[in-house]
Amino acid sequence: MGSVSRRGLLTASGAGVAAGAVATAGAFLLGEPEPEPAASAAPPQAVAFHGPHQAGIATPVQDRLHFAAFDVAVSTREELVALLVSWTRAAEAMTAGRVSAADDSGEALDLPASRLTLTVGFGPTLFARAGEDRFGLAAARPPALADLPAFPGEKLDPARGGGDLAVQACADDPQVAVHAVRTLARIGLGRVSVRWSQLGYGKTSSTTPAELTPRNLMGFKDGTGNIPYDDRAALDEHVWVAAADGPAWMTGGSYLVARRIRMHLEAWDQVTRQDQEATIGRTKTEGAPLGGKGERDRFDPAALPADSHVRMAHPTANGGVRLMRRGYSFVDGSDSQGRIDAGLFFLAYQRDPRRQFVPMQRRLATGDRLSAYIRHVGSGLWACPPGVSPGGYWGDTLLG
Amino acid sequence: MGSVSRRGLLTASGAGVAAGAVATAGAFLLGEPEPEPAASAAPPQAVAFHGPHQAGIATPVQDRLHFAAFDVAVSTREELVALLVSWTRAAEAMTAGRVSAADDSGEALDLPASRLTLTVGFGPTLFARAGEDRFGLAAARPPALADLPAFPGEKLDPARGGGDLAVQACADDPQVAVHAVRTLARIGLGRVSVRWSQLGYGKTSSTTPAELTPRNLMGFKDGTGNIPYDDRAALDEHVWVAAADGPAWMTGGSYLVARRIRMHLEAWDQVTRQDQEATIGRTKTEGAPLGGKGERDRFDPAALPADSHVRMAHPTANGGVRLMRRGYSFVDGSDSQGRIDAGLFFLAYQRDPRRQFVPMQRRLATGDRLSAYIRHVGSGLWACPPGVSPGGYWGDTLLG
Repeated sequence: MGSVSRRGLLTASGAGVAAGAVATAGAFLLGEPEPEPAASAAPPQAVAFHGPHQAGIATPVQDRLHFAAFDVAVSTREELVALLVSWTRAAEAMTAGRVSAADDSGEALDLPASRLTLTVGFGPTLFARAGEDRFGLAAARPPALADLPAFPGEKLDPARGGGDLAVQACADDPQVAVHAVRTLARIGLGRVSVRWSQLGYGKTSSTTPAELTPRNLMGFKDGTGNIPYDDRAALDEHVWVAAADGPAWMTGGSYLVARRIRMHLEAWDQVTRQDQEATIGRTKTEGAPLGGKGERDRFDPAALPADSHVRMAHPTANGGVRLMRRGYSFVDGSDSQGRIDAGLFFLAYQRDPRRQFVPMQRRLATGDRLSAYIRHVGSGLWACPPGVSPGGYWGDTLLG
Repeated sequence: MGSVSRRGLLTASGAGVAAGAVATAGAFLLGEPEPEPAASAAPPQAVAFHGPHQAGIATPVQDRLHFAAFDVAVSTREELVALLVSWTRAAEAMTAGRVSAADDSGEALDLPASRLTLTVGFGPTLFARAGEDRFGLAAARPPALADLPAFPGEKLDPARGGGDLAVQACADDPQVAVHAVRTLARIGLGRVSVRWSQLGYGKTSSTTPAELTPRNLMGFKDGTGNIPYDDRAALDEHVWVAAADGPAWMTGGSYLVARRIRMHLEAWDQVTRQDQEATIGRTKTEGAPLGGKGERDRFDPAALPADSHVRMAHPTANGGVRLMRRGYSFVDGSDSQGRIDAGLFFLAYQRDPRRQFVPMQRRLATGDRLSAYIRHVGSGLWACPPGVSPGGYWGDTLLG
């Protein structure tokens, strides 16, 4: 690719390239699911940027997240395209472990690609804002990108919601994810502004059944029934937009729903283990469905408590629909009452939120016993276009 | 020790103990510096809790931080002792990779000890608050625990400062550090309240010269000249309180200064690399002192720009004093202007802040060219007592 490692570009002579900073770009076949990363001693790893789908969706979930929602400040379609082209070029470099510009901010200079993925989405306001067809895109807005309805119990902070554009940066090293979002913000200086952002310190929803299922801050394993990253049939059925779904520019794309879910951990911690397990519908230690022994035992959801979270969220209770969850735990300090400001930053990819997230959340918001211990405080919805081909750019099926 | 692994205690039969959850407690000799951790494929690791000094000071810096400042709500010395005893017992268990109670919150159940350390400090307000000798400790307040003076340019948020007690949790896994602070807060329910807390996603100040020096969010290597964890002479000279220093109960202890330092990264990113390097006094890529080639080249501080950070902070400019820094980078989302709320959570251990941090910060606050790009927005000072012997408790030299 004629490019150099992160250090190479900034080293005057170019001779001081550290072996550890040379990423193994292109190690994966385009369109093939990436192999599960080695549990330890992993070599510097790069996830392929190009392909039919954006990376960061079916990619095995990385350890850390930095997420940012941006508002677009430019006013013409040409300027929007120019922004997305420059972001794409930078993402191609960074996901391969390279720097994107000579004035790189530098904090990731010595770090390998760390399985960085950058995934971009287009929010409803990009298509029209207050009735204004800003970029001539109003007619292209997908019906599935319908504004989310209000849900019972939510208390949304407008300062943590919406955004013309979303960028999800995931990596196994937090510094790499932080650097990537910062770099895109720098490239967009004057053309976009950060509306809100969120650091996720640890994944809660694995998409790799063979690895230990991570636990959320309630102490329970999370994501046991998640769609595996390599289950092509389930991905096609539940995650990737099909040609028949329309609009054509979204074929191979997916819809992202983000929810900042604050957990009332002080209250949860006062609940007995038995009550916690009845609330979730699984045992705490093993993550087994109540009445079962093993986490992945087959079970009859109807045998769980009627208002338990697992039963309420189970596909059998939701017309068979599923979501691909890629959530992360967050801890953002403490509030003025000394309560920890922590919870789950829920990220879910799906083929049509109107059939998936929305009806499921309607049920959970009213019937799920867990809802007494959580509150949705931030929300966003974006249409994530399909993957980029070499030479292309994010959104070229829409804007090209 | 007659104890069980995290999972063992919560597994009904006790037979399902996962090998990966059994920590190698006691693997290190008390009082000996811990060996540098293996770069990868590290086995589950526990740092010894007992010893002449608290762990988490000279311990090689772990990757992640959760820090919390607490205010004490109890009113008698006996209640304070009871709190510290229960915290100590819990810390002994958690740092060994064990659960501390049957109702453990559970989010770290499957995780090894991850080199968790818990370090406790006593703030000025524990000794007297608004003139009130709350616990009969006023006469025991160390003269070195003098309230920090105001420094030029700081803009301290009272919601991010002070605290009767400080708990520094460091671990290589963020979930383990978060769990540890949460557990102490739970144990202290009704007896302490969290005043403020801070997550640090990545270390910026290594104390292990043989490892790659981490970079801060300005993109520069940070901590090249830090006190190495195993430099006993330097630790004795600069970090550990000596018997001659007084008071006797602090012998083997250390003073912790914490400063939440927000970086104006958007402004910094507009500065040319040449100007950035002149501001710091080192090159960006290599971290070499200006004019030199290698990070650890010997150099004459007087040859650096007079207002450069490295020159201003160098021991030769500060009467030979040094600090042991254990700082972490933080990213706490974005402010209302869309600027990243990020920077350095500075943690420095020292023998006497009156001779070390205070005069150094006075110089930096007025003369350091770097101060145009940073702002101190949170602050705390605590006396960290010496280490705990088996059967003892945090602060028993003061309260016993």
